Amino acid sequence: MSSATPGPASVVVTEIIARKRDGKALTPEEISSVVAGLMRGAVSDAQMAALLMATVLRGMSEEETAALTQAMLHSGEVLDLSSIAGLKVDKHSTGGVGDKTTLVVAPLVAALGVPVPKMSGRALGHTGGTIDKLECIPGLRTDLSPARFRQQVAEIGVAIASQSDRMAPADKRIYALRDATATVESVPLIAASVMSKKLAAGADALVLDVKVGEGAFMAQRQQARALAEMMVRIGRGAGKRVVALVTAMDQPLGRTVGDALEVGEAVETLHGQGPEDFTDLCGIVAGYMLLVGGKAATPEEGRRGAQEALRSGAGLAKLRELVRAQGGAPEVVDDPSRLLGDTECRAVSLAQEGHLVRLDARQVGLVLRQLKEAAGPRKACCGVLLLAKCGEKVGDAPVARVIGPRGAGAALEEAARALAGAYGVAGEPVTGAALLQEVIA
Amino acid sequence: MSSATPGPASVVVTEIIARKRDGKALTPEEISSVVAGLMRGAVSDAQMAALLMATVLRGMSEEETAALTQAMLHSGEVLDLSSIAGLKVDKHSTGGVGDKTTLVVAPLVAALGVPVPKMSGRALGHTGGTIDKLECIPGLRTDLSPARFRQQVAEIGVAIASQSDRMAPADKRIYALRDATATVESVPLIAASVMSKKLAAGADALVLDVKVGEGAFMAQRQQARALAEMMVRIGRGAGKRVVALVTAMDQPLGRTVGDALEVGEAVETLHGQGPEDFTDLCGIVAGYMLLVGGKAATPEEGRRGAQEALRSGAGLAKLRELVRAQGGAPEVVDDPSRLLGDTECRAVSLAQEGHLVRLDARQVGLVLRQLKEAAGPRKACCGVLLLAKCGEKVGDAPVARVIGPRGAGAALEEAARALAGAYGVAGEPVTGAALLQEVIA
Repeated sequence: MSSATPGPASVVVTEIIARKRDGKALTPEEISSVVAGLMRGAVSDAQMAALLMATVLRGMSEEETAALTQAMLHSGEVLDLSSIAGLKVDKHSTGGVGDKTTLVVAPLVAALGVPVPKMSGRALGHTGGTIDKLECIPGLRTDLSPARFRQQVAEIGVAIASQSDRMAPADKRIYALRDATATVESVPLIAASVMSKKLAAGADALVLDVKVGEGAFMAQRQQARALAEMMVRIGRGAGKRVVALVTAMDQPLGRTVGDALEVGEAVETLHGQGPEDFTDLCGIVAGYMLLVGGKAATPEEGRRGAQEALRSGAGLAKLRELVRAQGGAPEVVDDPSRLLGDTECRAVSLAQEGHLVRLDARQVGLVLRQLKEAAGPRKACCGVLLLAKCGEKVGDAPVARVIGPRGAGAALEEAARALAGAYGVAGEPVTGAALLQEVIA
Repeated sequence: MSSATPGPASVVVTEIIARKRDGKALTPEEISSVVAGLMRGAVSDAQMAALLMATVLRGMSEEETAALTQAMLHSGEVLDLSSIAGLKVDKHSTGGVGDKTTLVVAPLVAALGVPVPKMSGRALGHTGGTIDKLECIPGLRTDLSPARFRQQVAEIGVAIASQSDRMAPADKRIYALRDATATVESVPLIAASVMSKKLAAGADALVLDVKVGEGAFMAQRQQARALAEMMVRIGRGAGKRVVALVTAMDQPLGRTVGDALEVGEAVETLHGQGPEDFTDLCGIVAGYMLLVGGKAATPEEGRRGAQEALRSGAGLAKLRELVRAQGGAPEVVDDPSRLLGDTECRAVSLAQEGHLVRLDARQVGLVLRQLKEAAGPRKACCGVLLLAKCGEKVGDAPVARVIGPRGAGAALEEAARALAGAYGVAGEPVTGAALLQEVIA
């Protein structure tokens, strides 16, 4: 054994790690001292990584998770939106495939008088990110300063920005470590990560869309519920109105996956011509946002209001305002197909007759990620058009089209081949999971 | 969640960490790729720390432990001692308090014709280190080059050197990480650490002294046995003759603790005037070293030979040769008290009549460590003289004397006070654990 003797600060950290290793709970002071130590260099990445692995394997209590959330939240700027009248409502999805919900519900709810200050993320793993989708609109900026973000919400009722590096920087630092050290999969660590960012963004109320199923980070219902419950309690503990929805993510949401295609589908949905499952989800999420925002007495009343704002075109008009306010070309809202540019596509056929019983969202996401890597600077036009979804009859006709930049033939063919593996066909239809599985309120 | 996407090499490492996190066994190729990656910078300290914590909590099979040993062994130089005739025998203690065994058995066994190429360590935690003890002899060097080390063993049959940084550097790197991340306490990690260094030192046979009890790193017999068995199997798998002894480390070994005091006690023991427990242990360890070195048919025969070499003064003469060969003043062997220099001491009295039933080696070690820190450059003269040991009657007379440099009065008084807490007195004597608890051969 070596002879290195650690200094006093390091000894304390080592004792904290040892306590978690041995299954003991840490105090809020211990947790905040570790996070602060990490940010000022007194705690090494290696020490944090060991503590994260011990946390994944030994768990964390609700009190510990709340303390970690607060420590990460207070590692940076916290947005003050109190100058904006009314209850400001934020929304968060734990990540799915084809999940363009924010692009629809943020303008829809804002059109109904609830301010929506929305901080969004980028693609992660097999899932997509709202910021990547928005950024295919020419000129549109998502790196809004806190002042500009606040001003836009005050003026038009909605803004969608990427999270600033100055907000919850400890979460960013810790998340990068988790990503490299196989410590992502932990309900308390995920809950603290999400909630530290959401609390830093300064809204008064929050609707959480916790995805569950093969295409989600949480494959099991029980896990998803535990995550939803933990986030709701942390949010309430911080004085926020929080509702969590557990929703199915087995097959992709809607008929499109891919940045530009999804912007198009969001616009169609705001035109009242979206696919049924996605339109339903938007109605549900918007309904709860209106509820916690104090503009509806029940989620159903909220949902009816949202449907009305779809029909009237008020949501679409608000999206146009949002695009213009953030520097984008508003005519995209009238013809989103121009976002695709010069593309080619390949059909995916199964040559099997029957009912589609499986359409694996994770596999679709991974195939798309690979295609985007091959497409480089033109990745935004890459996507998958889902011609058939679970429960529908299939036969000779293609079940999907893979789209990519002109000239990406080989990558497209590989994607089409790989995509066929995401499908399952059976003689009889199988009833899929209900879209809304649970409400934690 | 953040968007950092790890590169391909990093992804593989992350998958390896995830497999251990999930309780799966790693292949030898995975283990060697992680160790090699750590040494060339492709695996970060944070990734290694997460893997170490997962290993502490999920365990490692014997095959994995052997693979880790080999990977660390081959991260640096491996000494080739084949030019020296006979079976070369090394010895290792997992660390205790008052454990000066090497200073006696290395010359004793060498005097009986078994070459002893001994690599030793420094103090760690509450335990002492052979190198620190040897270095209180003026002029004596322990940083021998491989060539000089080999030459000295060839010429006089024994050398005691500190492990070179070029041998098993991956172990050194990983041990420093373990020390900082609360991942020291793991039987397979300790086994791999010890065995990688011992195999790098190039001996043909090895006697392991695995300490068990309150003053050892392994407090539980079962743990100590598991460690002993694992090290024996790893050593045999590498083609070495290995015997492990599990020996008691509840109270300190012998009557002295402290670098200079222990050199003196080792010399007394080689004069045949050592304390009973320590003389017994030296006989046992030397007996097994002679057995695996092929100079005795049984450990008992080896022990009798060792006792003879004590009586004849052959062991003492060999220690004198060793000190001279490594540049030290050989007259120390005739008057070790000169190593202490100008000291003062404080008596420790319990003011309780009865039998001594507890003398906590760990506490003695920690008190001494603190005293040494206060003494700075004169730390070698710090020590504790144990006037009473477990099973003996105590009364008004002092049970110990704490020794330190002249002028260290306050530190000495604090040490004497603290030391009193290491003792327990009862009306009736309690039979302590047998010194030799188990032999794994």
